[in-house]
Amino acid sequence: MNIVYYPLGISIAGLLFSLWLIRRVSASPEGTEGMTKVATAIREGARAFLRRQYRTIGILAIVLGVLIFVTYAFTGKFAVGVQTGTAFLFGALCSGIAGFTGMSVSVRANSKVAAAADRKDMNSALQLALRSGAVSGIMVTALSMLGVAALYVLYTSVLHFDPREVPDIIVGFGFGASFVALFAQLGGGIYTKAADVGADLVGKVEAGIPEDDPRNPAVIADLVGDNVGDCAGRGADIFESTAAESIGAMILGVALYPFFQEKGILVPLIINAFGLIASIIGVMTVRVKSNEDPMKALNRGFYVSLALATAVMFFVTQSFLGKEYLWFFGAGMVGLAMSMVFVWLTQYYTDHKYRPVQEIVRGSETGPATNIIAGLAVGFENTALPIIAIAASLFGAFKLGEASGVTDGGLFGTAIATMGMLSTAAYILAMDNFGPITDNAGGIVEMSGASDETREITERLDAVGNTTKALTKGYAVGSAALAAFLLFSAYTKVAKIDIVDLSKVPVFIGAMLGGMLVFLFSALALRAVGKTAGYIIEEVRRQFREKPGIMQGTEKPDYGRAVDITTGGALRNMVFPGVIAIVVPVATGLIFRAEAAAGFLMVATIVGILMALVMNNAGGAWDNAKKFIESGKFIDSKGVIQGKKTPVHAAAVVGDTVGDPFKDTAGPSLHVLIKLLSTLTLVLAPLFM
Amino acid sequence: MNIVYYPLGISIAGLLFSLWLIRRVSASPEGTEGMTKVATAIREGARAFLRRQYRTIGILAIVLGVLIFVTYAFTGKFAVGVQTGTAFLFGALCSGIAGFTGMSVSVRANSKVAAAADRKDMNSALQLALRSGAVSGIMVTALSMLGVAALYVLYTSVLHFDPREVPDIIVGFGFGASFVALFAQLGGGIYTKAADVGADLVGKVEAGIPEDDPRNPAVIADLVGDNVGDCAGRGADIFESTAAESIGAMILGVALYPFFQEKGILVPLIINAFGLIASIIGVMTVRVKSNEDPMKALNRGFYVSLALATAVMFFVTQSFLGKEYLWFFGAGMVGLAMSMVFVWLTQYYTDHKYRPVQEIVRGSETGPATNIIAGLAVGFENTALPIIAIAASLFGAFKLGEASGVTDGGLFGTAIATMGMLSTAAYILAMDNFGPITDNAGGIVEMSGASDETREITERLDAVGNTTKALTKGYAVGSAALAAFLLFSAYTKVAKIDIVDLSKVPVFIGAMLGGMLVFLFSALALRAVGKTAGYIIEEVRRQFREKPGIMQGTEKPDYGRAVDITTGGALRNMVFPGVIAIVVPVATGLIFRAEAAAGFLMVATIVGILMALVMNNAGGAWDNAKKFIESGKFIDSKGVIQGKKTPVHAAAVVGDTVGDPFKDTAGPSLHVLIKLLSTLTLVLAPLFM
Repeated sequence: MNIVYYPLGISIAGLLFSLWLIRRVSASPEGTEGMTKVATAIREGARAFLRRQYRTIGILAIVLGVLIFVTYAFTGKFAVGVQTGTAFLFGALCSGIAGFTGMSVSVRANSKVAAAADRKDMNSALQLALRSGAVSGIMVTALSMLGVAALYVLYTSVLHFDPREVPDIIVGFGFGASFVALFAQLGGGIYTKAADVGADLVGKVEAGIPEDDPRNPAVIADLVGDNVGDCAGRGADIFESTAAESIGAMILGVALYPFFQEKGILVPLIINAFGLIASIIGVMTVRVKSNEDPMKALNRGFYVSLALATAVMFFVTQSFLGKEYLWFFGAGMVGLAMSMVFVWLTQYYTDHKYRPVQEIVRGSETGPATNIIAGLAVGFENTALPIIAIAASLFGAFKLGEASGVTDGGLFGTAIATMGMLSTAAYILAMDNFGPITDNAGGIVEMSGASDETREITERLDAVGNTTKALTKGYAVGSAALAAFLLFSAYTKVAKIDIVDLSKVPVFIGAMLGGMLVFLFSALALRAVGKTAGYIIEEVRRQFREKPGIMQGTEKPDYGRAVDITTGGALRNMVFPGVIAIVVPVATGLIFRAEAAAGFLMVATIVGILMALVMNNAGGAWDNAKKFIESGKFIDSKGVIQGKKTPVHAAAVVGDTVGDPFKDTAGPSLHVLIKLLSTLTLVLAPLFM
Repeated sequence: MNIVYYPLGISIAGLLFSLWLIRRVSASPEGTEGMTKVATAIREGARAFLRRQYRTIGILAIVLGVLIFVTYAFTGKFAVGVQTGTAFLFGALCSGIAGFTGMSVSVRANSKVAAAADRKDMNSALQLALRSGAVSGIMVTALSMLGVAALYVLYTSVLHFDPREVPDIIVGFGFGASFVALFAQLGGGIYTKAADVGADLVGKVEAGIPEDDPRNPAVIADLVGDNVGDCAGRGADIFESTAAESIGAMILGVALYPFFQEKGILVPLIINAFGLIASIIGVMTVRVKSNEDPMKALNRGFYVSLALATAVMFFVTQSFLGKEYLWFFGAGMVGLAMSMVFVWLTQYYTDHKYRPVQEIVRGSETGPATNIIAGLAVGFENTALPIIAIAASLFGAFKLGEASGVTDGGLFGTAIATMGMLSTAAYILAMDNFGPITDNAGGIVEMSGASDETREITERLDAVGNTTKALTKGYAVGSAALAAFLLFSAYTKVAKIDIVDLSKVPVFIGAMLGGMLVFLFSALALRAVGKTAGYIIEEVRRQFREKPGIMQGTEKPDYGRAVDITTGGALRNMVFPGVIAIVVPVATGLIFRAEAAAGFLMVATIVGILMALVMNNAGGAWDNAKKFIESGKFIDSKGVIQGKKTPVHAAAVVGDTVGDPFKDTAGPSLHVLIKLLSTLTLVLAPLFM
């Protein structure tokens, strides 16, 4: 049997399993009528956004797909044009399906989690939230693997291409996935933060009503935002990681053909496939003991997945990579270790228990300015240890691979390490989706006026969700970083350049432009949030003005209009930064050619990782500094407790508001940008040569 | 006559001219007794800081000098050790002398400017401020040139070395200059912002007294800060630019020996020397017409300098660079053009007349958080055009040089462009020092209770000073960027590496670490300001508590103690970031070797330029957004004027406070860091090979 049937079969099995999970979730009891009403509004808003978003993305994708085809056709590479163009559209389609289905489950699960909390059943609530999150996690990983494996089978078994040519042909699939991910994350990120900021500024600050208050016309838009940003956005991000990094690893595997033949090309996919099984088992074992911190239960599940992934790594390398397999197993372990290190580091920089967040808390004592400075200092500082971890992993995996004695074994070592890191992706994504689901459940409980005890359960779950969201962002940056080297090694192979010599003027210019793009893109993403928030603020003010009954509770606000306006705004404002992200590298490659494009890619990646770390973790730290002050545990330098509604708290709120578009819009969009640049240059390499 | 006597002679003439200027300034009439008293306090504070600062720097320099010597001696390169170690100490000494003397004049000029304002003589006030600023500008450029030229004469004429070996030998001088510059800028930057923030937070916010109020114990420390940060710090920065970039250009000149012999090596110095004359003439022509905007007068002077520098460039290239000189003249013009473009771009991003500052002003309407987000977006965005300008200049200068047909002519073209940009350095520095001098004059007028009319004159000059400070920072980043390529080309020549291949794992790791260092260093610089400000806040609170008479005006605050505490704090807190800036690149070079060190250097430079642009210009834009609101010209979206003491103004003050350590500590320290990394790697290249 051809071993490509492992990933093919496992991904189909994974999809079936996720269908079973969907049925389980659907069968779980609905909540009260009040809950269902709120949940329906969220669901409709989220679906409406996603439909319009994917329509916009679809149009853009078709335009780009045709453009790819035409460009190749005009340069006389008709066949490459057809192959790349269709692979691109296929990748975009699969990513869209995975994102849409995954999110549909999440927005159905939220009211059921609320209902479980209403029954005071913490374990059911937790399991429901995690398993619904896992649906998206599994679908994303499985569909992305299925797409790659199917294309591979098509070209080798049906069209009888040499297996060594196939990875180059299917890079279009990865580019399609990155393309969708960029806009999904950008659009979702803009939506979620614009709605959040808009709802807060008019609701909390101007009208003085609490968060998630049903009188706020933007409250549903805010709850919708959690789904479309975190859930759909991150799903698309991981979809493209799995696809692009597998294909990149397969391209490097080609270099090892003399040693391992087709096995070298397919090992990355096989690790991914068995990793999916490890993740599924991890998810299914999670169970919270009475009164235990739910985070502990989630961590246990993660460790189960990691342990199984270790076993997977051993058996796969041992079965397919000859007698030198132990070196590659070691490289894979480096990747698994890095996923743990990144989770720890993220926790250190964003948890209130440690120095960094406490520094921000103390900074809040002297007002918002010192809070901001402290937060930025923490953000800048927190690049150091992760970069050292990345450098160490890269060096370790490379040296282990090199020690195998296989030609290009070093590069392949880094590829295996990346696959190791990605092998628990489905679990991580389940944890990530846990965040918006529990957040929504909390909102539903709040808006439907449930009891305090119910609220306590959802609040505990929501707090855990905040932590998991931060951790998965750390994981996403880490995997992007580890994958980066693999992806540009693949680029240099495809573009047939042996070196990327920074001491040449065009390459250095490419490098400068690459670094610049990251800053420009971040600026545009931040500005898009501000603009879109402006529309919502206007709309909420208008509703309050024209319907004075809303504040007295006698008139219902028009949630739908707020959702519509946010949707339209987010979609309009995502286009410009997205287009810039594509035009700048293409222009660089066309003007300064392939080696300069490589310089662009590498430095953009480095700067992108740095800025993503700054944005994600400064944002997380600001958030938790505010939460710590709200918990009433902060005693200031004069010995006074400074809790909610003090000036210290107000200062911390400023930091949190600044951090929001950092950690939920610009930061996550940067992970995707990095990978988009890799797949983009891979696909267009022939034009730059 | 050996042409090295041109720079030697001109630099000595420049020094004599600056002595004459000092006498002129000294002869200018003193102000009232009240003014003299305040001025004396500032002078003593500044001198005390500088003495202690240079003592600390001296000790560190001697330690490092010995270390350099020992390291070389141990690796068997005894002669190189002696040469490099002494050149290093000589460079550090010259930089110290230039910094100290220049600042002494500035702190003597402030009360004389105040006196001229008191006589309602705007023209005298402006000329005094500019010419006193020019003393430092001329001394810095002349001494740095003198040092390089003297060493060159020593090695060629006295010790009879081959001229081609000399540039490599004297790189130690540049490293010494960078080393002093790093600590001068860091220490001064920490001092100035810690004193500013400390004085504001306790004085303005807690006690509710206006800025520069004599009852504030930290007011003298604040005025001292302007001198030690802007004046001494930036002086050391430009000293090292002139030194390091001349030496770098000379190293590239060696490659052109077959064409131009010694002339190729010395042309950079000669351009610098004649540029000094152009700058001096520019300074001396400045004269303000009655009631004209003083900025116009300064701009006229700058254009005079630029026009003369153009002529200089033409005659020097024509006289020394053979029949292909027109290409190099063109490259030089690229450098001069870039200095203008950078001045414009900085103005666009930091002047209230244009979109960026207006965006921050509008962001302030909805509170401090949106002000901060808008400011950061402006900061991130403002990297784009400057980077494109740098790329275009680099490419243009390289292509022009290459077209000359001379071997390595392209690189030499970039060197000539850098020299072109630097040829007006003395004028720029005079404008820069104009800032703290007029700022101080304003403070003195305020504290000595002069008339409103006097105050108006100093306020107008102070506003101009704020603009010139922003422009010179733009100029400093631009020159650092243009010089960067020249300096690492010099490094690759010294380290004898032909390529810097980013696709090798160690080089890529070096590159990542280089990018990371910039962020870490920025974090440490910001934190140092916060820490030091904390000491001052405590001290001011203590004085208010223990001497209740201060607030009633019956008791005098202890200014000296506040100055002492700031001094000690700034010096203690500058050491750690400074040491990190040296240890990280050295460790990278020793572990991963010469090519990785080059990758480190290049990516650190790119990221450093990006972050310096963000920090300088976001800071400047925040500052001017606040000033625009204070001017009472801002009409909000509801049609209401939002001036001083409104919540909109309060939001803008938060942005300004965040921007202060950005633009006056971290940003300027980054320019210096970039150049320090170049000279450091140049000096240690033999150890990395």
